[in-house]
Amino acid sequence: MNTKELVEQIYKKKSFLCIGLDVDLNKVPKHLLKLDDPIFEFNKAIIDATQHLAVAYKPNIAFYEAYGIKGWKSLEKTITYLNTNYPEVFTIADAKRGDIGNTSTMYAKAFFEDLQFDSITVAPYMGKDSVEPFLSFEDKHTILLALTSNQGAFDFQTKKIEGKELYKNVIEISKSYHNAQNLMYVVGATKAEYLSEIRGIIPDSFLLVPGVGAQGGNLQEVCKYGINDQVGLLINSSRGIIYASDAEDYAQAAANKALELQKQMEEILLFKK
Amino acid sequence: MNTKELVEQIYKKKSFLCIGLDVDLNKVPKHLLKLDDPIFEFNKAIIDATQHLAVAYKPNIAFYEAYGIKGWKSLEKTITYLNTNYPEVFTIADAKRGDIGNTSTMYAKAFFEDLQFDSITVAPYMGKDSVEPFLSFEDKHTILLALTSNQGAFDFQTKKIEGKELYKNVIEISKSYHNAQNLMYVVGATKAEYLSEIRGIIPDSFLLVPGVGAQGGNLQEVCKYGINDQVGLLINSSRGIIYASDAEDYAQAAANKALELQKQMEEILLFKK
Repeated sequence: MNTKELVEQIYKKKSFLCIGLDVDLNKVPKHLLKLDDPIFEFNKAIIDATQHLAVAYKPNIAFYEAYGIKGWKSLEKTITYLNTNYPEVFTIADAKRGDIGNTSTMYAKAFFEDLQFDSITVAPYMGKDSVEPFLSFEDKHTILLALTSNQGAFDFQTKKIEGKELYKNVIEISKSYHNAQNLMYVVGATKAEYLSEIRGIIPDSFLLVPGVGAQGGNLQEVCKYGINDQVGLLINSSRGIIYASDAEDYAQAAANKALELQKQMEEILLFKK
Repeated sequence: MNTKELVEQIYKKKSFLCIGLDVDLNKVPKHLLKLDDPIFEFNKAIIDATQHLAVAYKPNIAFYEAYGIKGWKSLEKTITYLNTNYPEVFTIADAKRGDIGNTSTMYAKAFFEDLQFDSITVAPYMGKDSVEPFLSFEDKHTILLALTSNQGAFDFQTKKIEGKELYKNVIEISKSYHNAQNLMYVVGATKAEYLSEIRGIIPDSFLLVPGVGAQGGNLQEVCKYGINDQVGLLINSSRGIIYASDAEDYAQAAANKALELQKQMEEILLFKK
């Protein structure tokens, strides 16, 4: 999927919501545990109930890997279900990968070709030759960690190199990578005030913004500083939506939470015009 | 496995060699492709032929993920084979993971509990709360990326924050993490001259050193600057050993290459005493 199609979907659905599928078997409704593949059944119900309210879904790969081969099967079924039934949805493998060249190519193949994700999150620590292998896939997107939403972001990301924070160095340098047009960036909602400066460096790029809701980020603040002509934002919410209820009504409860966010986004998009 | 046992193995085998199991089906001997699980069969033969010469094995997880569920099965079989037949061997999941707290915990469970690896490589970009979840597992080790062996290492890792290179900041700050005694560090062999400065910061830690051989690093140089009282080095070689031959004699050819390195290491250990 290219960004033009993504922007069309945003205006069609009046939403720039991304739903994080971080499925933890300790948190899903108990009645699902009797089923053969509770993770997939949970995802399927959440997706069916929310697909008209969200433009993107983001399975966090750790939650699947933690269940070994069973987890990988659930992941495969989930991405296949999305691609088959809702091909208009943008899919993100939240994998935070990054390795030397030939190894990054293997990861890119795993997520872009084998699993057919539209995008993957990638860590920048190892530099250019660890990121460019992901960028070489056409109509696939590499979402580079810039400024994350956790406390540890202040350990290194906000430290200054020659007067400029590491995360700004990451963003600026990445603009010169081959196929940089396929880049998006992770910028945590808990640091909304940083967004205007980031927009100064990358006015046109899409930003994936985690941390709204459970982690305390504020949607209006993020949009105030981060929205651009093409909207340019994907706001992720995971736990706040998918664990809205642990009873049999969980999918409907998730849809209600997603609707709340979608309504706020609709208003922001109206106001923006 | 704790580091005391690892050091005992090093002196017993007169080797601090780690063999990287980066199995690419395009590179394994053709006759294996007829088998049900060529990746595992390849690994099994390499391990059986070299286990007396190496103290550690390091499957690069990307190479398994690239083959989807089939790849995960090969990985499971490989680590189970190692743990069952050669429990004295130190095992490294070269996964380069790192995510916010609860997600890092899921990755730690996947590799430490489910797959029973002794250690995992972790990227430091997201800071303390992304690394500490890995450190909380007893007798398991977290191998933090410090200075990698690729060209991209110069993009950020060697840039200075308040007069000190990012990789040195990473090493120094990580020393204050909870359970820091479970840390080891990745330091590329292609940058051997940096090792004496690194030893100034962490005289006692184990270093995992990739880049000897195929990537041009020099064993003698690395040892000159990096060896400590407990040896403190695991020298990794992947392609140089496992792809020494693509004919039916591949396991023997790998053993010959491993023996060359082991003999050099034996001499270094003798000279050291």
